[in-house]
Amino acid sequence: MDKDTDRKRRPPSSKAPARGETRDRLMQIGMEIVSERGFSATGIELVLKHAEVPKGSFYYYFKSKDDFGLAVIDSYAEYFAHRLQRIFQNASLTPMEQLSAFIDGGAAGLRKFEFRRGCLVGTMGQELSILSEEIRHRLETVIQQWEVCVEHCLRAALDRGQVRPTLEPATASRYFWIGWEGAILRAKLSQSIEPIEVFRSQFFEFLGCTPPTGN
Amino acid sequence: MDKDTDRKRRPPSSKAPARGETRDRLMQIGMEIVSERGFSATGIELVLKHAEVPKGSFYYYFKSKDDFGLAVIDSYAEYFAHRLQRIFQNASLTPMEQLSAFIDGGAAGLRKFEFRRGCLVGTMGQELSILSEEIRHRLETVIQQWEVCVEHCLRAALDRGQVRPTLEPATASRYFWIGWEGAILRAKLSQSIEPIEVFRSQFFEFLGCTPPTGN
Repeated sequence: MDKDTDRKRRPPSSKAPARGETRDRLMQIGMEIVSERGFSATGIELVLKHAEVPKGSFYYYFKSKDDFGLAVIDSYAEYFAHRLQRIFQNASLTPMEQLSAFIDGGAAGLRKFEFRRGCLVGTMGQELSILSEEIRHRLETVIQQWEVCVEHCLRAALDRGQVRPTLEPATASRYFWIGWEGAILRAKLSQSIEPIEVFRSQFFEFLGCTPPTGN
Repeated sequence: MDKDTDRKRRPPSSKAPARGETRDRLMQIGMEIVSERGFSATGIELVLKHAEVPKGSFYYYFKSKDDFGLAVIDSYAEYFAHRLQRIFQNASLTPMEQLSAFIDGGAAGLRKFEFRRGCLVGTMGQELSILSEEIRHRLETVIQQWEVCVEHCLRAALDRGQVRPTLEPATASRYFWIGWEGAILRAKLSQSIEPIEVFRSQFFEFLGCTPPTGN
């Protein structure tokens, strides 16, 4: 084993938190910073500083910044899958209430972080020309999973006659995510929730139904 | 006058191209690079190298990188205003043909630059949390001008009875730009024109008409 590999692969010191804990913290901080700044403007030093993790530990877990980026995407995908599952598998809501609840959640997140944090996939998507092909492919796969989820929701609404009968769930779901990423971008730009509400009202108009009213 | 100001304000050497020419070249290269890489990942050195302009000239024209960024946004806004004018004031096209021609133009641009260059406003919009308030405000103003343009187009279509009578042109125009920025992002992500075509078919469905067929 050469020196460099040895340095990179040395386990964190005994004083450091358990392996999983440190990695989890790097992922959490990574998601937060990349969602705000984008990937190319996220320095490893900044992540380490915020996570209070020494540099050696970083290279114990990740081969490179790109390797870290892929892990951040995977963590975000996992977090987002839980969020989607919680909403879209909530049988006490109608499909259209589920969709509206998802939009509510996005709006709440934007407000909570004062419009600084958007969608990690959208933010990294804008940087593609300077990111690796592997990262591009991973981002595309993640958003395709989200599309399947909303497609099921729209199909359920169609089966129940709650949207116009001409709606094509698969295409409409793609259209939903196209608009959703655009709405988040615009909300950040105007520092306001209003673009999200424009998106909600017009997308429901497109579906041929009125947005369900919240409680 | 102190030394630093003197250095910054020294006019370009007599061998350099005329003032306007150098500035124009910096703007052109700036738009190209920022559209691809985003603003924060665009180093001044890279712009100077591509434009073949010495550093001294840069500081003759711009006080700072932010000042350069604002000028790049203004140049892009001017270029885009011409593009919109050319399409939306083309009296030989119906309003819906104009809208579809705009979409065609965007798709052609994406293809031409192999999905590396998107919309400069959308790209910079994703970086907002690390850009200045002045830049944010400028980007927001630009997109509001674009909204007015499409609003007029949709109102003309409404007056001619070419879209559903319940359409609200101002809100629908905001919705158009939300979706358009999202569609460009997604096209870059999937390296394909297909998201643009999904956007076109579904937005026209939303308008209550079919997309005009090209020649």
